[in-house]
Amino acid sequence: MQVRVRYAETDQMGYVYHGNYAQYYEITRVEALRSLGIRYRDLERRGVLLPVLELRSKFIRPAFYDDLLTIHLRVESLPETRVTFHHEIENENGDTINLGQVTLVFVDGVTFKPTKADSYLLEKFEPFFN
Amino acid sequence: MQVRVRYAETDQMGYVYHGNYAQYYEITRVEALRSLGIRYRDLERRGVLLPVLELRSKFIRPAFYDDLLTIHLRVESLPETRVTFHHEIENENGDTINLGQVTLVFVDGVTFKPTKADSYLLEKFEPFFN
Amino acid sequence: MQVRVRYAETDQMGYVYHGNYAQYYEITRVEALRSLGIRYRDLERRGVLLPVLELRSKFIRPAFYDDLLTIHLRVESLPETRVTFHHEIENENGDTINLGQVTLVFVDGVTFKPTKADSYLLEKFEPFFN
Amino acid sequence: MQVRVRYAETDQMGYVYHGNYAQYYEITRVEALRSLGIRYRDLERRGVLLPVLELRSKFIRPAFYDDLLTIHLRVESLPETRVTFHHEIENENGDTINLGQVTLVFVDGVTFKPTKADSYLLEKFEPFFN
Repeated sequence: MQVRVRYAETDQMGYVYHGNYAQYYEITRVEALRSLGIRYRDLERRGVLLPVLELRSKFIRPAFYDDLLTIHLRVESLPETRVTFHHEIENENGDTINLGQVTLVFVDGVTFKPTKADSYLLEKFEPFFN
Repeated sequence: MQVRVRYAETDQMGYVYHGNYAQYYEITRVEALRSLGIRYRDLERRGVLLPVLELRSKFIRPAFYDDLLTIHLRVESLPETRVTFHHEIENENGDTINLGQVTLVFVDGVTFKPTKADSYLLEKFEPFFN
Repeated sequence: MQVRVRYAETDQMGYVYHGNYAQYYEITRVEALRSLGIRYRDLERRGVLLPVLELRSKFIRPAFYDDLLTIHLRVESLPETRVTFHHEIENENGDTINLGQVTLVFVDGVTFKPTKADSYLLEKFEPFFN
Repeated sequence: MQVRVRYAETDQMGYVYHGNYAQYYEITRVEALRSLGIRYRDLERRGVLLPVLELRSKFIRPAFYDDLLTIHLRVESLPETRVTFHHEIENENGDTINLGQVTLVFVDGVTFKPTKADSYLLEKFEPFFN
C-alpha cells in the first residue's frame, strides 16, 4: 500500500503531523481487507463496528510533503474479540520511518457490546494462519 | 467567539491550512446557536440535519500557529429552507484575515429531503429580525 | 484523478465533512501539475509559494465512506499573478457531487509579496492555451 | 484544560475519530506550558523543536459530538533529552474515556539533532520536582 503525503497533512515543522499517521494506518487496513475480499463498509452494514481500542506509534524519522510512503501490514494471530494490526512505514529511500500498532475491537452495532469476530471475516483470514 | 490555532492546523508554509477554516466557521455557528439556547446536537436528535450547501472563503492574510482568532458571525435573514452565515475572522492585531460565507440546508433526517427550518429554531431566531 | 474516501474524512451524518473537500482539490492540483512535469514541492524550493486566495464549493450530493471519487480539473486562462482551478467531483455512478473553485496567488518566498507566475511553470502551461 | 468536540472530529460511527485525540493532547500540553509561562511558539523561535517520538492511546469509551471533555496532564520526571506527558480525558459524567502518553524529543532547529532540554524550559519545570 502506498500513500502520497498531502500538503494538509504537514505542519509548520514541515513534517507530517503525528496525529495523521492514524489515517495512514487506517487506509492500509482497509485496502488490505479489500484485497482479502472484505469491504469494511460492508462489515458495518452487517452490523459490526470496529472501533480502535489501542494505538501505538513510534516516530523514527519524519515524513515530508509529497513523499510517497510504502506501508507494510502484518497480523500475527487470528482475530477473536479483537485484532491487532502492525504497520511499518517506509519512505522512498527504504528507511523505516514509523511503526504503528492498532488494536480494534469487534462491537455489535446494535448493543454496542464487544462481540466475536464476524465469521465472514474469519473465513477470509483463516487461510493465512494454517 | 475565539479560537486558538492548533499546531495540527498549520501547514509547512507555517500558515493555517486553508481547508481548516471550515472548522472555525463551524464551531462559531455552533456556539452562536448555543447562545440562543439551541444545541445543534439536539436539532439532529429531533430529526433535522443541516448539511452544507455552499462554502465561500476569502483569505486576506494568513493565520499562524497559536494565534488567538476572533470570529464574528452574522445572519442576514430568517432561515427558510436554507440559512446563510457570514463569518469574519480577526487576528490579535484586529486585522481582518478571512471572510467566510456558509449556506446550510435543512434536511429531514428520515427522508433526506430538504425541509423548512425547524419551528423550534425559528422561534429563537425571530426576535433578532423584528 | 481518483481519490478513495477515508473513514477519518466522514462525519457523524455519514457524509464527507465539507471542509475535507479542500484536500481533494489540493491533491488533484498537485497531481495535475505533476503530469505537466511540475512538482509543487520544487516550486516551493525555488522560492515560490502558492497560498490560497479564494475557495468556493458547491455541495450537490454527499460523498460517503469508501466511495471512489473522480475529480476533473480545468484551468481557463494562463496563470498571471494568480491562477484559478475549477474542480468537478463525480461519484461512482457518474453523478456530479461537488463543484470547487480555488484561486491561488503566486507569492515570493522571501518578500512574501505577490509576484508573477514562475516562468518555469508558464512554459509547461503554455502549450494548452495555444 | 477543556475542549469541546467539533463536528469535523466525529466519524460515521458518531465517535470522535481516534486519530484526533493527538490534537487534544497537543492543545493540552500547549496550554499547560503557557500556564508555566512558556509559549511553545517561542521555543521554536529560540531554535528548539519538539517532535513527537512516541504516542500511545487507550480508548476506553467513545467521545461524542459536542461533548465537553476535561483533559488532565501529568509529567512524571524532569525533561532531559525527552519528556513524556501523560493525558487522561474525562467526559461530562466524570468517566475516564481515554489515556494518552506522548513522548517528545528536544531537537536543535539548525542541526536537527537531539539536544538537552532548553534551560529556559527547565527553570519553569523545576519547582514542580523539588
